[in-house]
Parts: sequence; C-alpha cells; structure tokens
Amino acid sequence: MGKGRLEAFSDGVIAIIITIMVLEMKVPHGYELSDLKELWPVFLNYIISFIYVGIYWNNHHHMLHAVRSINGSVLWANTHLLFWLSMVPFVTDWMGESSFSKLWPVVMYGVVLLMNSIAYAILVVVLLKHEGQTSPLAIAVGNDQKGKISIFFYVIGIACAWISPYISFAFYVLVALMWLIPDRRIEKKLAADQHTG
Amino acid sequence: MGKGRLEAFSDGVIAIIITIMVLEMKVPHGYELSDLKELWPVFLNYIISFIYVGIYWNNHHHMLHAVRSINGSVLWANTHLLFWLSMVPFVTDWMGESSFSKLWPVVMYGVVLLMNSIAYAILVVVLLKHEGQTSPLAIAVGNDQKGKISIFFYVIGIACAWISPYISFAFYVLVALMWLIPDRRIEKKLAADQHTG
Amino acid sequence: MGKGRLEAFSDGVIAIIITIMVLEMKVPHGYELSDLKELWPVFLNYIISFIYVGIYWNNHHHMLHAVRSINGSVLWANTHLLFWLSMVPFVTDWMGESSFSKLWPVVMYGVVLLMNSIAYAILVVVLLKHEGQTSPLAIAVGNDQKGKISIFFYVIGIACAWISPYISFAFYVLVALMWLIPDRRIEKKLAADQHTG
Amino acid sequence: MGKGRLEAFSDGVIAIIITIMVLEMKVPHGYELSDLKELWPVFLNYIISFIYVGIYWNNHHHMLHAVRSINGSVLWANTHLLFWLSMVPFVTDWMGESSFSKLWPVVMYGVVLLMNSIAYAILVVVLLKHEGQTSPLAIAVGNDQKGKISIFFYVIGIACAWISPYISFAFYVLVALMWLIPDRRIEKKLAADQHTG
Repeated sequence: MGKGRLEAFSDGVIAIIITIMVLEMKVPHGYELSDLKELWPVFLNYIISFIYVGIYWNNHHHMLHAVRSINGSVLWANTHLLFWLSMVPFVTDWMGESSFSKLWPVVMYGVVLLMNSIAYAILVVVLLKHEGQTSPLAIAVGNDQKGKISIFFYVIGIACAWISPYISFAFYVLVALMWLIPDRRIEKKLAADQHTG
Repeated sequence: MGKGRLEAFSDGVIAIIITIMVLEMKVPHGYELSDLKELWPVFLNYIISFIYVGIYWNNHHHMLHAVRSINGSVLWANTHLLFWLSMVPFVTDWMGESSFSKLWPVVMYGVVLLMNSIAYAILVVVLLKHEGQTSPLAIAVGNDQKGKISIFFYVIGIACAWISPYISFAFYVLVALMWLIPDRRIEKKLAADQHTG
Repeated sequence: MGKGRLEAFSDGVIAIIITIMVLEMKVPHGYELSDLKELWPVFLNYIISFIYVGIYWNNHHHMLHAVRSINGSVLWANTHLLFWLSMVPFVTDWMGESSFSKLWPVVMYGVVLLMNSIAYAILVVVLLKHEGQTSPLAIAVGNDQKGKISIFFYVIGIACAWISPYISFAFYVLVALMWLIPDRRIEKKLAADQHTG
Repeated sequence: MGKGRLEAFSDGVIAIIITIMVLEMKVPHGYELSDLKELWPVFLNYIISFIYVGIYWNNHHHMLHAVRSINGSVLWANTHLLFWLSMVPFVTDWMGESSFSKLWPVVMYGVVLLMNSIAYAILVVVLLKHEGQTSPLAIAVGNDQKGKISIFFYVIGIACAWISPYISFAFYVLVALMWLIPDRRIEKKLAADQHTG
C-alpha cells in the first residue's frame, strides 16, 4: 500500500492543529499595548505549541520519507499519533489561561506531550516491523536515542510540577530545543538515494 | 477521470472534521483535576467520534486504493458521504453535553452513524457499477458483510435508546470495535498488485 | 506552470469552507426533539450551502481536469473565486438565523452566489485565453450556457426577495438542482483522453 | 529531499489561515442593511488580509516551483514563515474591531506583515544557499527588489501610525497592490522549462 494518502491526511490534520490554536487567542478588549501584554502567556504558549507541532510534522516528514510502503497497522498507529496531537490545542489553551502558574494544566500539558512521544515511538516500532531491520528506515532511525531522552524528560518535567509548574515548563522547552536541531542521521542517509518527494 | 483529487478533497474534509471536534471541548473554568473530571463524558465522546471518523478515512483509503477511475456519480456519492461525516461533530457535541443520559442526543448520534454507513454503502454500489463486477474492487469488497452488520447494529442501537441510552452507546462502541480490525480482504487482495499510492 | 498546487490549494480552501459551516450550527440547549426542530431552517440552509460548495468543487474538478497548464492570471482568477466561496458560510449563517424570512439576508445570500458564478465565469475566460480556443477545455466548456442561465436566475431570485424571500430561496434551490446533474459534455470529452488525474 | 510534502503542508496551513479569518466575521444581530453596514471595516479588513495571504501563497507557489530540492533548514525557515502567517487572522481581527482608528492594532498589524516579509526573505536566503547562486531559483529571484521595498514600506507604515493609523493602512494597501502584479521574472524564467508541477 502506498504512503501518499497517509502523508496527505497527516499533513491535513497537522496543518489544522497548528492553525486552530491561534483561533483560541481571543483579541484583547481594549486597544492599548497594555491590553496586548496581558496576552503574553497565551502567546508564549502558542509559540511553544506551534514549535512542538512543527517538530512532529518535521520528524514525521523525515521518517515517512525513508518509508517504502505501509500497511493497516501503520495507518492505525499514525491515527493514534494524530489523536494525541489533536489534544495539544486543548491543553495549550488550558495552560495558557492559567499563565503556567497552576499545577494541573501544566501536568496535563506534559502528559499530552508524553503521550505524543509514546505514540510516535509506537509508530516507529510498527514501521520498523513492517519495513524490516535492514531497511533504510531502520538504519536511519538507529536506536532512537532522542525519542527515549524526550520521554524521560517529559516524565521528570511532569513530576517537577508538584515542586513548581515553571520547572516543568522549562523541561518542555528543553525537549523542544533538543528537537529543533533536525535529525541529521536520517537526512544524511537520504542524501544518498535522491528521490523527488 | 482520475481519482487523485477526489482522494485529496476527501482527505481535506475528513482531516478537518476529525480535528474540529476537539475545538468543541471547551477548557474547564477552574484549574483543578476535579474541573477536568467533569469533562470526562465529552472527552470519551470525542475519542469515540475520532475513532469513527478515523475508521471511515481508513476504509475510504483502502477502497479507493482498489479503484482505477471515477465518474460524476462517484463524485456525488462521495460528497454525500462527506456530508454525513460532517454531521458527526454536531451530534458528538450534543451527546457529549447530555452525558449520554438523554434520549434524543443518543438517537440522533445513532441516526448520523447510520446515515454514514448507508452513504458509504451507496458509494460502494456506485463504484462497483462503474468498475464492473470483475474488477479488483469487486473481488476485494465481496458481499460487504461488515457493512450490512453495521447498519443492522445501528438500527438496533437506536431502538434501544428508548430502553436506555447507555445500551445504544454500547452498540455504537461495538460497531467501532468491529471496524478497528482493518479489512484484511482488501489488503490481501492489494498485496498482489504493488503500486505506490 | 503546473496545475497541481493550484488544485491542492483550492481543494484545501473548499474543504475548509464546506466543513466550517457545520461549526456555525450550535447544538440546542435542551435535549428534546422539539429543541432540534427549532434548528430546522439552519439545517436546511446548511444542506443547500453544502450542495452549492460541493457543486463548485465538482465543476472546478471537471474544468481543471481539462486544463493543461496555468499562469499568474489563472492563479489570481482562482483566488478571486475562492474569496467569494469563503463568503458562503457568512451569508449562510445570517440567512439561517433569519429563517429565510427577512429581506436582506436572503438578498445577500443571492449576491454572494451571484458573485461566485461571476468569479467562476471570469476563471473560465482567463483559462480559455491561456489555453486557446482550440484546446480540449474550449471544446469541453462550449458556450457555457448553464453558467449564463445561473447568473440570470440569481438576478431574478435576488429581485424577487422584495416580493417574498421564499421565492428567492426557491430560485437558489432551482439553480443548485440544475447543477447537480454533472456536466456531461466535459466528462464525455474527457472520456476520450484517459489520464490518471 | 523532495519538496512535495513541504508544498502540501504549506498549502494546508495557508488554506486554513485564509479561510478561518471569515469565521471571525460574526453575523450582525439585526437583519437590516444598516446592520450589515456596521461590519464594513471588518469586511474591508478581511479583504485586505485575504489578498495578503493570497499573495504569500502565490509567491510561495512561484518560488517553490523553481526549487529542485529542500533540506532541514528549508523546512524550518518555511515553518517560521507559516508561524507569522498564522498571526494574520489575530491582528486582522483586532484591527477590524478597532475600525482602523486605534494606534496599537494598526501598529501590530504592520509588525506582523513586516515579520512575514522578513520570514519570507529568510526563506529565500536559505533556499538560495541550498540551491546555489547559479540555480534557476537564483536567476529567477534576482536581487528581490520588491521584497526589500516591501520591508521599507512596512517600517514607514508602522512609524506613520503615530501620525494617523489611516496613513499606515494606506501603506499596507500600497504594498499589497505592488504584489498583486505577479512576479513576471520567475514566470518568464519558468516558461522555458515546462514541468507539470
């Protein structure tokens, strides 16, 4: 089964998720700079979530590029990932409204990020099972150290919320920064076999 | 006529439907875990509807994969299916607000699911008429037993709402579970003729 | 310049327009069948607008299929059409709220439909200028009688709103029915040169 | 790495941005023409923003058409541009509500336009670095005079807001008009090598 429509559907869902978050940013009631300043936590939150969803799209793009075909299990592992991505706007909204200062919004934001990274890891496993251990994907993904570190950091971050929600948030930002550096391994691997997308 | 744009348009509409449902999940007013717990029926409802729309995309993907070309009737049968899919967020919202405990929201949810399965069955018939009884699609679809059982279960489920809305909901979940197992017949059939999608 | 991305972008915009209209259908406050009945004009309106946007996608699909390449003018004529299509949810919402019984919502709905048909006619002219009078498109489109009749009926329909908004609405439904029959001419023409789209 | 999915994802995000703006146009409470007239600044604002986003899609389409392949840096430069485009509905809404008469909404609208043009300029630089100074893209883009003039006009426009917000708005409209004329250079260049996009 070809991967074209899986990519197209994922692109569509991720494009909507990344864009609807801005819909939650209600314009201020006044027209002064001070009215805008009150939106600062919501805006910062939007940036972080935008970057997170952008990272997932980026990695999804890189990984699927190395994939040759898919099957029914891949479709569902991918839909499972899209489900958890679709929860990002909801927790973003809740955390933004609480200005990062409340326990549960920050915990739930971390839980959704954690579930996303787990769903992504499952997708990797299902793809590797389908493609085989000697596939270009298997070589490109390697032992997925970054994915494992992310899961570890999310768990630490969530636990720290009981000390201070700001520490949790710092961990979430840290993971985002770690991923902003594109996965050179896959790109290097792909540089060999030049396809047009 | 090629099927590429039909797939792209369907992907777009289904991607939006599956994503806008989360927009209806309003964040709680407080920041405690208990505030989140009140959202439980809405969230459960979201999961079920997400899975349902995911199933339709999945089956649509599988079926269209076996299709070689389309015509004007197929375009409209497909648009008809998209119409009923677009009603899912509306009834999801209504049923979620009623916490599954009211008669009419549960009945209408079932009616929309029923109309979706009928619209899908119509699309199958129109496609088979266009592709012919000896096409790969015809062999792959077979007698579409699963589709017929679904329609039967929806009708039973809707009728049971007058006894208890929870029984109806159990039937809807049952049909979803039945479909979560991907259609091995089509996949097996397609495994023979390897195209890149 | 290739037409692939123009089709993809138009598919995206039209998919969103056709789907966001249902977002405007707010769920009833009560949970009785009578609460749902009050939504009847809004729902009927949604169906008509869904069909209208579906018709435009359908015709756009058919027409672009016959097109071999595009240029900058085509891009802007297409964006102009998308602009007027994007106004459909707004006027649908206004007319639905007024239950078809008020003058101006029905007039504005007609004006937006009229502008859409004019924008479509402009796109046809720009495409024909680019493709040439002996192109497959030119032969397929012919003298575009249906488009001209639609514009005529919209004008009549709008004028009738001063007599009764219901007559206007009847005209709008009439045009929709006229277009629901797919354009056999283009399809027949295209049946000759079988491409996979 | 192929550019197909980058184009598809950008198309998706831009399609959503251009369409969700109309969601912010709330229908008037009354049903008279005078009720609609009050929406005039919001509507005018919508038109301008629609044209702006349309221009970006157009230019993006033209530029990517001349691109042969992409890399990780291009992906992120593109995501950065999409971020600033996603801010357009927010500032459109704020400026529309203020009827162009308040300082800060007009300033912020200009700032978002300015950031968009800078993000676009960065994307051009990153693409040129990847494609090389002798690539078709480099020849087609030239010294990007229009992009530089736009940035200059935005800065002037923003500064003028302290004199009168209406002057700022005039500058923003001016830049839009300048871009409405499609970039003949790239199109001429591309006319040579006919691909189907």
